[in-house]
Amino acid sequence: MESKAAIYEVMYRRRDIRRFRPEPLPEETLAVILQAAHHAPSVGFMQPWNFVLIREQSTKEQVSALFEQENALAATVYDHERQQLYRRLKLAGILASPLNLCVTCDPTRGGPHVLGRHTIRETDVYSTAAAVENLWLAARAEGIGVGWVSILNNEALKRILQLPSHIIPVAYLCLGYVDSFGDEPELQKVGWAQRLPLASLVYYEQWGQQSHPNWTPLPFPKDELIPTCELTYHSQHGRDALTYYSKGIPLTASWY
Amino acid sequence: MESKAAIYEVMYRRRDIRRFRPEPLPEETLAVILQAAHHAPSVGFMQPWNFVLIREQSTKEQVSALFEQENALAATVYDHERQQLYRRLKLAGILASPLNLCVTCDPTRGGPHVLGRHTIRETDVYSTAAAVENLWLAARAEGIGVGWVSILNNEALKRILQLPSHIIPVAYLCLGYVDSFGDEPELQKVGWAQRLPLASLVYYEQWGQQSHPNWTPLPFPKDELIPTCELTYHSQHGRDALTYYSKGIPLTASWY
Repeated sequence: MESKAAIYEVMYRRRDIRRFRPEPLPEETLAVILQAAHHAPSVGFMQPWNFVLIREQSTKEQVSALFEQENALAATVYDHERQQLYRRLKLAGILASPLNLCVTCDPTRGGPHVLGRHTIRETDVYSTAAAVENLWLAARAEGIGVGWVSILNNEALKRILQLPSHIIPVAYLCLGYVDSFGDEPELQKVGWAQRLPLASLVYYEQWGQQSHPNWTPLPFPKDELIPTCELTYHSQHGRDALTYYSKGIPLTASWY
Repeated sequence: MESKAAIYEVMYRRRDIRRFRPEPLPEETLAVILQAAHHAPSVGFMQPWNFVLIREQSTKEQVSALFEQENALAATVYDHERQQLYRRLKLAGILASPLNLCVTCDPTRGGPHVLGRHTIRETDVYSTAAAVENLWLAARAEGIGVGWVSILNNEALKRILQLPSHIIPVAYLCLGYVDSFGDEPELQKVGWAQRLPLASLVYYEQWGQQSHPNWTPLPFPKDELIPTCELTYHSQHGRDALTYYSKGIPLTASWY
Protein backbone atom coordinates (compact mmCIF):
# COMPACT_ATOMS: atom_id res chain seq x y z
CA MET A 1 0.00 0.00 0.00
CA GLU A 2 2.83 2.34 0.83
CA SER A 3 4.41 1.60 -2.54
CA LYS A 4 1.23 2.52 -4.33
CA ALA A 5 0.91 5.73 -2.37
CA ALA A 6 4.46 6.67 -3.38
CA ILE A 7 3.42 6.61 -7.02
CA TYR A 8 0.56 9.04 -6.49
CA GLU A 9 2.71 11.15 -4.22
CA VAL A 10 5.37 11.70 -6.85
CA MET A 11 2.69 12.72 -9.37
CA TYR A 12 1.06 15.20 -6.99
CA ARG A 13 4.39 16.64 -5.86
CA ARG A 14 5.88 17.08 -9.33
CA ARG A 15 6.42 20.73 -10.23
CA ASP A 16 7.65 22.74 -13.18
CA ILE A 17 10.84 24.17 -11.75
CA ARG A 18 12.61 27.37 -12.77
CA ARG A 19 14.94 27.92 -9.80
CA PHE A 20 17.86 25.55 -9.38
CA ARG A 21 20.79 24.91 -7.12
CA PRO A 22 24.15 24.73 -8.85
CA GLU A 23 25.32 21.31 -7.62
CA PRO A 24 25.91 18.91 -10.52
CA LEU A 25 23.72 15.82 -10.81
CA PRO A 26 25.45 12.54 -9.92
CA GLU A 27 25.95 10.55 -13.10
CA GLU A 28 24.43 7.42 -11.57
CA THR A 29 21.22 9.31 -10.82
CA LEU A 30 21.13 10.83 -14.28
CA ALA A 31 21.56 7.38 -15.80
CA VAL A 32 18.67 6.02 -13.74
CA ILE A 33 16.23 8.76 -14.71
CA LEU A 34 17.14 8.37 -18.40
CA GLN A 35 16.50 4.65 -17.99
CA ALA A 36 13.05 5.52 -16.63
CA ALA A 37 12.37 7.65 -19.71
CA HIS A 38 13.54 4.81 -21.96
CA HIS A 39 10.90 2.54 -20.42
CA ALA A 40 8.02 4.75 -21.51
CA PRO A 41 5.41 3.28 -23.83
CA SER A 42 5.99 3.84 -27.53
CA VAL A 43 3.87 3.10 -30.57
CA GLY A 44 4.97 -0.20 -32.12
CA PHE A 45 7.81 -0.33 -29.55
CA MET A 46 9.46 2.28 -31.77
CA GLN A 47 11.35 4.08 -28.99
CA PRO A 48 11.68 7.21 -31.13
CA TRP A 49 13.53 9.26 -28.50
CA ASN A 50 17.07 10.55 -28.16
CA PHE A 51 18.51 12.45 -25.23
CA VAL A 52 20.94 15.32 -25.88
CA LEU A 53 22.67 16.24 -22.62
CA ILE A 54 24.01 19.79 -22.36
CA ARG A 55 26.36 21.15 -19.74
CA GLU A 56 28.46 23.54 -21.86
CA GLN A 57 27.97 27.16 -20.95
CA SER A 58 28.22 28.38 -24.54
CA THR A 59 25.32 26.18 -25.65
CA LYS A 60 23.19 27.19 -22.67
CA GLU A 61 23.87 30.84 -23.48
CA GLN A 62 22.70 30.41 -27.06
CA VAL A 63 19.51 28.66 -25.95
CA SER A 64 18.95 31.23 -23.23
CA ALA A 65 19.24 34.04 -25.80
CA LEU A 66 16.65 32.21 -27.90
CA PHE A 67 14.34 32.03 -24.91
CA GLU A 68 14.76 35.73 -24.08
CA GLN A 69 13.92 36.67 -27.65
CA GLU A 70 10.81 34.47 -27.87
CA ASN A 71 9.69 35.40 -24.39
CA ALA A 72 9.78 39.11 -25.21
CA LEU A 73 7.59 38.40 -28.24
CA ALA A 74 5.23 36.20 -26.20
CA ALA A 75 4.72 38.92 -23.59
CA THR A 76 3.30 41.33 -26.15
CA VAL A 77 0.17 39.22 -26.79
CA TYR A 78 -1.20 39.97 -23.33
CA ASP A 79 -3.13 43.02 -22.24
CA HIS A 80 -1.82 45.58 -19.77
CA GLU A 81 -2.28 43.94 -16.37
CA ARG A 82 -1.69 40.39 -17.53
CA GLN A 83 1.39 41.50 -19.44
CA GLN A 84 2.81 43.05 -16.28
CA LEU A 85 2.25 39.78 -14.43
CA TYR A 86 3.71 37.80 -17.33
CA ARG A 87 6.88 39.89 -17.29
CA ARG A 88 7.32 39.25 -13.58
CA LEU A 89 7.19 35.46 -14.01
CA LYS A 90 10.38 33.48 -14.09
CA LEU A 91 9.81 31.08 -16.95
CA ALA A 92 13.13 29.33 -17.44
CA GLY A 93 16.28 28.34 -15.58
CA ILE A 94 18.48 27.54 -18.55
CA LEU A 95 21.68 29.11 -17.26
CA ALA A 96 21.16 28.34 -13.55
CA SER A 97 20.42 24.65 -13.96
CA PRO A 98 23.47 22.36 -14.00
CA LEU A 99 22.04 20.26 -16.83
CA ASN A 100 19.95 21.01 -19.89
CA LEU A 101 18.43 18.10 -21.78
CA CYS A 102 16.74 18.05 -25.14
CA VAL A 103 14.43 15.07 -25.69
CA THR A 104 13.87 14.51 -29.39
CA CYS A 105 11.68 12.35 -31.62
CA ASP A 106 12.98 10.58 -34.73
CA PRO A 107 9.90 9.85 -36.89
CA THR A 108 11.99 7.58 -39.15
CA ARG A 109 13.01 5.19 -36.37
CA GLY A 110 11.82 1.65 -36.97
CA GLY A 111 11.45 2.17 -40.72
CA PRO A 112 8.52 3.54 -42.72
CA HIS A 113 5.87 1.18 -41.30
CA VAL A 114 5.86 1.43 -37.54
CA LEU A 115 3.21 -0.90 -36.14
CA GLY A 116 0.23 1.09 -34.87
CA ARG A 117 1.29 4.37 -36.50
CA HIS A 118 -0.36 3.71 -39.85
CA THR A 119 -3.27 6.13 -39.38
CA ILE A 120 -2.22 8.35 -36.47
CA ARG A 121 1.29 9.56 -37.28
CA GLU A 122 1.52 11.79 -34.21
CA THR A 123 1.77 8.75 -31.96
CA ASP A 124 5.56 9.06 -32.32
CA VAL A 125 5.69 12.46 -30.62
CA TYR A 126 3.06 11.31 -28.12
CA SER A 127 5.42 8.45 -27.21
CA THR A 128 8.24 10.93 -26.72
CA ALA A 129 6.05 13.10 -24.48
CA ALA A 130 5.32 10.00 -22.37
CA ALA A 131 9.08 9.48 -22.03
CA VAL A 132 9.44 13.06 -20.81
CA GLU A 133 6.78 12.41 -18.17
CA ASN A 134 8.53 9.25 -16.98
CA LEU A 135 11.78 11.20 -16.72
CA TRP A 136 10.04 14.02 -14.85
CA LEU A 137 8.50 11.66 -12.29
CA ALA A 138 11.75 9.74 -11.80
CA ALA A 139 13.63 13.01 -11.31
CA ARG A 140 11.04 14.08 -8.76
CA ALA A 141 11.51 10.83 -6.89
CA GLU A 142 15.24 11.57 -6.80
CA GLY A 143 14.64 15.07 -5.45
CA ILE A 144 15.63 16.65 -8.77
CA GLY A 145 13.62 19.48 -10.28
CA VAL A 146 12.70 19.61 -13.96
CA GLY A 147 11.53 22.62 -15.93
CA TRP A 148 10.14 22.33 -19.46
CA VAL A 149 11.09 25.35 -21.57
CA SER A 150 8.67 25.67 -24.48
CA ILE A 151 9.20 29.35 -25.23
CA LEU A 152 11.77 28.62 -27.92
CA ASN A 153 11.98 28.69 -31.67
CA ASN A 154 12.47 25.05 -32.61
CA GLU A 155 14.20 25.74 -35.93
CA ALA A 156 16.79 27.89 -34.20
CA LEU A 157 17.15 25.32 -31.43
CA LYS A 158 17.79 22.62 -34.02
CA ARG A 159 20.63 24.68 -35.48
CA ILE A 160 22.23 25.18 -32.06
CA LEU A 161 22.09 21.46 -31.19
CA GLN A 162 22.83 20.40 -34.80
CA LEU A 163 19.70 18.25 -35.03
CA PRO A 164 19.13 16.75 -38.50
CA SER A 165 16.17 18.31 -40.29
CA HIS A 166 13.85 15.33 -39.71
CA ILE A 167 14.41 15.25 -35.93
CA ILE A 168 11.73 16.90 -33.78
CA PRO A 169 12.85 18.56 -30.53
CA VAL A 170 9.89 17.61 -28.33
CA ALA A 171 11.11 18.98 -25.00
CA TYR A 172 13.90 21.25 -23.83
CA LEU A 173 14.34 20.55 -20.13
CA CYS A 174 16.36 22.11 -17.31
CA LEU A 175 17.38 19.80 -14.48
CA GLY A 176 18.89 20.38 -11.08
CA TYR A 177 18.44 20.11 -7.35
CA VAL A 178 16.12 22.65 -5.79
CA ASP A 179 15.55 24.42 -2.50
CA SER A 180 11.93 23.42 -2.55
CA PHE A 181 9.36 22.02 -4.94
CA GLY A 182 6.63 24.49 -4.06
CA ASP A 183 3.36 23.56 -2.44
CA GLU A 184 1.33 24.32 -5.57
CA PRO A 185 2.02 25.02 -9.24
CA GLU A 186 3.75 28.38 -9.68
CA LEU A 187 1.13 29.63 -12.15
CA GLN A 188 -1.60 28.95 -9.61
CA LYS A 189 0.30 30.63 -6.81
CA VAL A 190 0.61 33.86 -8.75
CA GLY A 191 -3.02 33.76 -9.88
CA TRP A 192 -2.33 33.10 -13.56
CA ALA A 193 -4.43 29.92 -13.75
CA GLN A 194 -6.26 27.51 -11.46
CA ARG A 195 -6.54 23.74 -11.46
CA LEU A 196 -9.86 22.81 -13.09
CA PRO A 197 -12.38 20.66 -11.21
CA LEU A 198 -11.79 17.14 -12.51
CA ALA A 199 -15.51 16.30 -12.57
CA SER A 200 -16.01 19.01 -15.21
CA LEU A 201 -13.53 17.26 -17.53
CA VAL A 202 -15.10 13.80 -17.44
CA TYR A 203 -17.81 12.75 -19.89
CA TYR A 204 -19.88 9.58 -19.81
CA GLU A 205 -20.37 7.49 -22.99
CA GLN A 206 -19.97 10.44 -25.35
CA TRP A 207 -18.65 13.98 -25.56
CA GLY A 208 -20.43 16.54 -23.41
CA GLN A 209 -22.43 14.14 -21.23
CA GLN A 210 -21.65 14.98 -17.64
CA SER A 211 -24.16 12.47 -16.42
CA HIS A 212 -25.66 9.29 -17.81
CA PRO A 213 -28.43 6.92 -16.65
CA ASN A 214 -26.01 3.97 -16.44
CA TRP A 215 -23.35 5.82 -14.44
CA THR A 216 -23.25 7.19 -10.97
CA PRO A 217 -20.94 10.21 -11.01
CA LEU A 218 -17.40 9.11 -10.14
CA PRO A 219 -16.35 9.69 -6.54
CA PHE A 220 -13.30 11.87 -7.16
CA PRO A 221 -11.09 11.94 -4.10
CA LYS A 222 -11.20 15.09 -2.06
CA ASP A 223 -7.68 16.47 -1.90
CA GLU A 224 -7.14 15.56 1.70
CA LEU A 225 -8.12 11.99 0.96
CA ILE A 226 -5.61 11.45 -1.82
CA PRO A 227 -3.38 8.62 -0.59
CA THR A 228 -0.01 9.86 0.36
CA CYS A 229 3.23 8.91 2.04
CA GLU A 230 6.47 10.62 2.82
CA LEU A 231 8.92 10.25 -0.02
CA THR A 232 12.34 9.68 1.39
CA TYR A 233 15.42 10.88 -0.42
CA HIS A 234 18.86 9.58 0.23
CA SER A 235 20.91 11.60 -2.19
CA GLN A 236 23.24 14.16 -0.73
CA HIS A 237 21.69 17.02 -2.61
CA GLY A 238 18.09 16.00 -2.10
CA ARG A 239 18.26 16.69 1.59
CA ASP A 240 16.46 20.02 1.36
CA ALA A 241 13.49 18.41 -0.25
CA LEU A 242 13.38 15.90 2.57
CA THR A 243 13.52 18.66 5.16
CA TYR A 244 10.72 20.42 3.36
CA TYR A 245 8.44 17.42 3.62
CA SER A 246 9.22 16.69 7.20
CA LYS A 247 7.88 20.10 8.18
CA GLY A 248 4.45 18.56 7.98
CA ILE A 249 2.94 21.11 5.63
CA PRO A 250 -0.77 20.27 5.25
CA LEU A 251 -1.16 18.08 2.21
CA THR A 252 -4.21 20.01 1.05
CA ALA A 253 -1.95 22.89 0.17
CA SER A 254 0.15 20.80 -2.15
CA TRP A 255 -2.01 19.66 -5.00
CA TYR A 256 -3.19 22.89 -6.45
CA MET B 1 14.19 4.04 -0.56
CA GLU B 2 11.39 1.56 -0.94
CA SER B 3 9.05 4.34 -2.06
CA LYS B 4 11.51 5.42 -4.72
CA ALA B 5 11.93 1.87 -5.94
CA ALA B 6 8.15 1.55 -6.30
CA ILE B 7 8.18 4.40 -8.80
CA TYR B 8 10.77 2.72 -11.01
CA GLU B 9 9.07 -0.61 -10.58
CA VAL B 10 5.75 0.63 -11.89
CA MET B 11 7.51 2.10 -14.93
CA TYR B 12 9.41 -1.10 -15.70
CA ARG B 13 6.35 -3.30 -15.16
CA ARG B 14 3.95 -1.22 -17.23
CA ARG B 15 2.76 -3.08 -20.33
CA ASP B 16 0.54 -2.43 -23.33
CA ILE B 17 -2.33 -4.82 -22.61
CA ARG B 18 -4.67 -6.44 -25.12
CA ARG B 19 -6.15 -9.26 -23.04
CA PHE B 20 -8.55 -8.33 -20.26
CA ARG B 21 -10.67 -9.92 -17.60
CA PRO B 22 -14.34 -8.92 -17.66
CA GLU B 23 -14.70 -7.68 -14.07
CA PRO B 24 -15.72 -4.00 -13.95
CA LEU B 25 -13.35 -1.45 -12.46
CA PRO B 26 -14.36 -0.12 -9.05
CA GLU B 27 -15.45 3.48 -9.45
CA GLU B 28 -13.22 4.64 -6.60
CA THR B 29 -10.18 3.21 -8.38
CA LEU B 30 -11.20 4.74 -11.67
CA ALA B 31 -11.60 8.12 -9.98
CA VAL B 32 -8.12 7.86 -8.48
CA ILE B 33 -6.37 7.04 -11.75
CA LEU B 34 -8.20 9.89 -13.52
CA GLN B 35 -7.02 12.14 -10.72
CA ALA B 36 -3.46 11.00 -11.43
CA ALA B 37 -3.90 11.90 -15.11
CA HIS B 38 -5.27 15.30 -14.13
CA HIS B 39 -2.06 16.02 -12.21
CA ALA B 40 0.12 15.69 -15.29
CA PRO B 41 2.17 18.68 -16.36
CA SER B 42 0.56 20.95 -18.94
CA VAL B 43 1.86 23.93 -20.85
CA GLY B 44 0.78 27.15 -19.13
CA PHE B 45 -1.23 25.01 -16.67
CA MET B 46 -3.71 24.68 -19.53
CA GLN B 47 -4.99 21.19 -18.59
CA PRO B 48 -6.27 20.63 -22.13
CA TRP B 49 -7.57 17.12 -21.47
CA ASN B 50 -11.02 15.57 -21.26
CA PHE B 51 -11.85 11.98 -20.44
CA VAL B 52 -14.68 10.23 -22.28
CA LEU B 53 -15.57 7.02 -20.44
CA ILE B 54 -17.21 4.29 -22.53
CA ARG B 55 -18.92 1.17 -21.25
CA GLU B 56 -21.80 0.87 -23.75
CA GLN B 57 -21.53 -2.17 -25.97
CA SER B 58 -22.87 -0.39 -29.06
CA THR B 59 -20.12 2.25 -28.91
CA LYS B 60 -17.42 -0.37 -28.36
CA GLU B 61 -18.72 -2.28 -31.35
CA GLN B 62 -18.51 0.74 -33.59
CA VAL B 63 -14.95 1.50 -32.48
CA SER B 64 -13.99 -2.14 -32.81
CA ALA B 65 -15.29 -2.19 -36.40
CA LEU B 66 -13.18 0.89 -37.06
CA PHE B 67 -10.15 -0.90 -35.67
CA GLU B 68 -10.76 -4.04 -37.76
CA GLN B 69 -11.04 -1.96 -40.90
CA GLU B 70 -7.86 0.06 -40.27
CA ASN B 71 -5.97 -2.98 -39.07
CA ALA B 72 -6.73 -4.87 -42.28
CA LEU B 73 -5.35 -1.91 -44.23
CA ALA B 74 -2.29 -1.64 -42.00
CA ALA B 75 -1.43 -5.32 -42.46
CA THR B 76 -1.05 -4.89 -46.22
CA VAL B 77 2.01 -2.64 -45.91
CA TYR B 78 4.17 -5.50 -44.68
CA ASP B 79 5.94 -8.12 -46.74
CA HIS B 80 5.04 -11.79 -46.71
CA GLU B 81 6.58 -13.15 -43.50
CA ARG B 82 6.14 -9.96 -41.49
CA GLN B 83 2.56 -9.70 -42.66
CA GLN B 84 1.86 -13.20 -41.43
CA LEU B 85 3.31 -12.30 -38.04
CA TYR B 86 1.35 -9.03 -38.00
CA ARG B 87 -1.91 -10.83 -38.65
CA ARG B 88 -1.26 -13.18 -35.74
CA LEU B 89 -0.80 -10.31 -33.29
CA LYS B 90 -3.63 -9.31 -31.01
CA LEU B 91 -3.55 -5.53 -31.21
CA ALA B 92 -6.65 -4.39 -29.35
CA GLY B 93 -9.04 -5.46 -26.63
CA ILE B 94 -11.85 -3.02 -27.30
CA LEU B 95 -14.75 -5.42 -26.76
CA ALA B 96 -13.16 -7.55 -24.04
CA SER B 97 -12.12 -4.68 -21.77
CA PRO B 98 -14.76 -3.49 -19.32
CA LEU B 99 -13.90 0.16 -19.93
CA ASN B 100 -12.81 2.15 -22.96
CA LEU B 101 -11.50 5.66 -22.43
CA CYS B 102 -10.80 8.37 -24.95
CA VAL B 103 -8.38 11.04 -23.73
CA THR B 104 -8.77 14.20 -25.79
CA CYS B 105 -7.02 17.54 -26.20
CA ASP B 106 -8.88 20.83 -26.50
CA PRO B 107 -6.43 23.28 -28.14
CA THR B 108 -8.76 26.20 -27.34
CA ARG B 109 -8.71 25.65 -23.58
CA GLY B 110 -7.29 28.60 -21.69
CA GLY B 111 -8.00 31.02 -24.52
CA PRO B 112 -5.91 31.95 -27.55
CA HIS B 113 -2.72 32.81 -25.65
CA VAL B 114 -1.73 29.91 -23.48
CA LEU B 115 1.46 30.76 -21.61
CA GLY B 116 4.41 28.85 -23.07
CA ARG B 117 2.57 27.72 -26.21
CA HIS B 118 3.32 30.81 -28.26
CA THR B 119 5.91 29.19 -30.53
CA ILE B 120 5.42 25.45 -30.04
CA ARG B 121 1.70 24.82 -30.50
CA GLU B 122 2.05 21.04 -30.15
CA THR B 123 2.79 21.42 -26.44
CA ASP B 124 -0.97 21.01 -25.87
CA VAL B 125 -1.05 17.46 -27.26
CA TYR B 126 2.28 16.74 -25.55
CA SER B 127 0.63 17.71 -22.26
CA THR B 128 -2.25 15.34 -23.02
CA ALA B 129 0.18 12.51 -23.77
CA ALA B 130 1.83 13.13 -20.39
CA ALA B 131 -1.61 12.78 -18.78
CA VAL B 132 -2.06 9.44 -20.54
CA GLU B 133 1.27 8.26 -19.12
CA ASN B 134 0.30 9.31 -15.59
CA LEU B 135 -2.96 7.41 -15.99
CA TRP B 136 -1.15 4.36 -17.34
CA LEU B 137 1.30 4.26 -14.43
CA ALA B 138 -1.45 4.79 -11.85
CA ALA B 139 -3.51 2.01 -13.42
CA ARG B 140 -0.47 -0.28 -13.32
CA ALA B 141 -0.03 0.50 -9.64
CA GLU B 142 -3.66 -0.52 -9.11
CA GLY B 143 -3.14 -3.79 -10.99
CA ILE B 144 -5.17 -2.54 -13.96
CA GLY B 145 -3.98 -3.09 -17.51
CA VAL B 146 -4.11 -0.37 -20.17
CA GLY B 147 -3.89 -0.82 -23.92
CA TRP B 148 -3.47 2.13 -26.30
CA VAL B 149 -5.33 1.53 -29.57
CA SER B 150 -3.83 3.74 -32.28
CA ILE B 151 -4.99 1.75 -35.30
CA LEU B 152 -8.08 3.91 -35.77
CA ASN B 153 -9.29 6.58 -38.11
CA ASN B 154 -9.58 9.66 -35.91
CA GLU B 155 -12.20 11.41 -38.01
CA ALA B 156 -14.48 8.37 -37.82
CA LEU B 157 -13.77 8.03 -34.09
CA LYS B 158 -14.74 11.67 -33.57
CA ARG B 159 -18.09 11.03 -35.23
CA ILE B 160 -18.76 7.99 -33.02
CA LEU B 161 -17.95 9.86 -29.80
CA GLN B 162 -19.50 13.11 -31.08
CA LEU B 163 -16.33 15.10 -30.48
CA PRO B 164 -16.53 18.70 -31.73
CA SER B 165 -14.36 19.34 -34.77
CA HIS B 166 -11.63 21.20 -32.86
CA ILE B 167 -11.13 18.42 -30.27
CA ILE B 168 -8.20 16.05 -30.86
CA PRO B 169 -8.59 12.43 -29.74
CA VAL B 170 -5.05 11.82 -28.46
CA ALA B 171 -5.48 8.32 -27.07
CA TYR B 172 -8.12 5.61 -27.23
CA LEU B 173 -7.47 3.32 -24.29
CA CYS B 174 -8.82 -0.04 -23.12
CA LEU B 175 -8.75 -0.68 -19.37
CA GLY B 176 -9.34 -3.73 -17.27
CA TYR B 177 -7.88 -6.22 -14.85
CA VAL B 178 -5.56 -8.80 -16.36
CA ASP B 179 -4.37 -12.32 -15.75
CA SER B 180 -0.78 -11.17 -16.04
CA PHE B 181 1.21 -8.18 -17.17
CA GLY B 182 3.74 -10.15 -19.16
CA ASP B 183 7.42 -10.30 -18.36
CA GLU B 184 8.42 -8.28 -21.42
CA PRO B 185 6.69 -6.14 -24.05
CA GLU B 186 4.53 -8.30 -26.31
CA LEU B 187 6.21 -7.03 -29.48
CA GLN B 188 9.58 -8.07 -28.14
CA LYS B 189 8.32 -11.49 -27.08
CA VAL B 190 7.11 -12.29 -30.59
CA GLY B 191 10.29 -10.94 -32.21
CA TRP B 192 8.73 -7.89 -33.84
CA ALA B 193 11.05 -5.35 -32.20
CA GLN B 194 13.70 -5.19 -29.50
CA ARG B 195 14.43 -2.64 -26.81
CA LEU B 196 17.28 -0.41 -28.04
CA PRO B 197 20.44 -0.04 -25.96
CA LEU B 198 19.96 3.20 -24.04
CA ALA B 199 23.61 4.24 -24.47
CA SER B 200 23.04 4.43 -28.23
CA LEU B 201 20.27 6.99 -27.74
CA VAL B 202 22.21 9.43 -25.58
CA TYR B 203 24.26 12.25 -27.07
CA TYR B 204 26.64 14.57 -25.26
CA GLU B 205 26.48 18.35 -25.84
CA GLN B 206 25.13 18.08 -29.38
CA TRP B 207 23.38 15.69 -31.73
CA GLY B 208 25.35 12.61 -32.74
CA GLN B 209 28.14 12.88 -30.17
CA GLN B 210 28.27 9.59 -28.31
CA SER B 211 31.30 10.69 -26.38
CA HIS B 212 32.73 14.01 -25.31
CA PRO B 213 35.99 15.08 -23.62
CA ASN B 214 34.09 16.62 -20.66
CA TRP B 215 31.87 13.60 -20.07
CA THR B 216 32.54 10.13 -18.85
CA PRO B 217 29.96 7.85 -20.46
CA LEU B 218 26.94 7.53 -18.17
CA PRO B 219 26.84 4.38 -16.06
CA PHE B 220 23.50 2.99 -17.23
CA PRO B 221 22.19 0.45 -14.78
CA LYS B 222 22.46 -3.15 -15.84
CA ASP B 223 18.98 -4.62 -15.82
CA GLU B 224 19.59 -6.71 -12.77
CA LEU B 225 20.75 -3.63 -10.88
CA ILE B 226 17.65 -1.58 -11.54
CA PRO B 227 16.19 -0.88 -8.11
CA THR B 228 13.08 -2.87 -7.53
CA CYS B 229 10.54 -3.87 -4.96
CA GLU B 230 7.42 -5.97 -4.89
CA LEU B 231 4.38 -3.92 -5.66
CA THR B 232 1.55 -4.99 -3.47
CA TYR B 233 -2.02 -4.83 -4.64
CA HIS B 234 -4.98 -4.86 -2.37
CA SER B 235 -7.82 -4.72 -4.83
CA GLN B 236 -9.96 -7.78 -5.13
CA HIS B 237 -9.33 -8.17 -8.80
CA GLY B 238 -5.63 -7.42 -8.71
CA ARG B 239 -4.93 -10.63 -6.86
CA ASP B 240 -3.72 -12.47 -9.92
CA ALA B 241 -1.09 -9.87 -10.60
CA LEU B 242 0.13 -10.24 -7.05
CA THR B 243 0.30 -14.01 -7.39
CA TYR B 244 2.21 -13.58 -10.58
CA TYR B 245 4.90 -11.51 -8.90
CA SER B 246 5.24 -13.73 -5.92
CA LYS B 247 6.30 -16.58 -8.17
CA GLY B 248 9.73 -15.00 -8.08
CA ILE B 249 10.24 -14.69 -11.80
CA PRO B 250 13.78 -13.35 -12.34
CA LEU B 251 13.63 -9.60 -12.65
CA THR B 252 16.04 -9.58 -15.56
CA ALA B 253 13.30 -11.07 -17.70
CA SER B 254 10.88 -8.27 -16.97
CA TRP B 255 12.30 -5.11 -18.42
CA TYR B 256 12.68 -5.96 -22.08
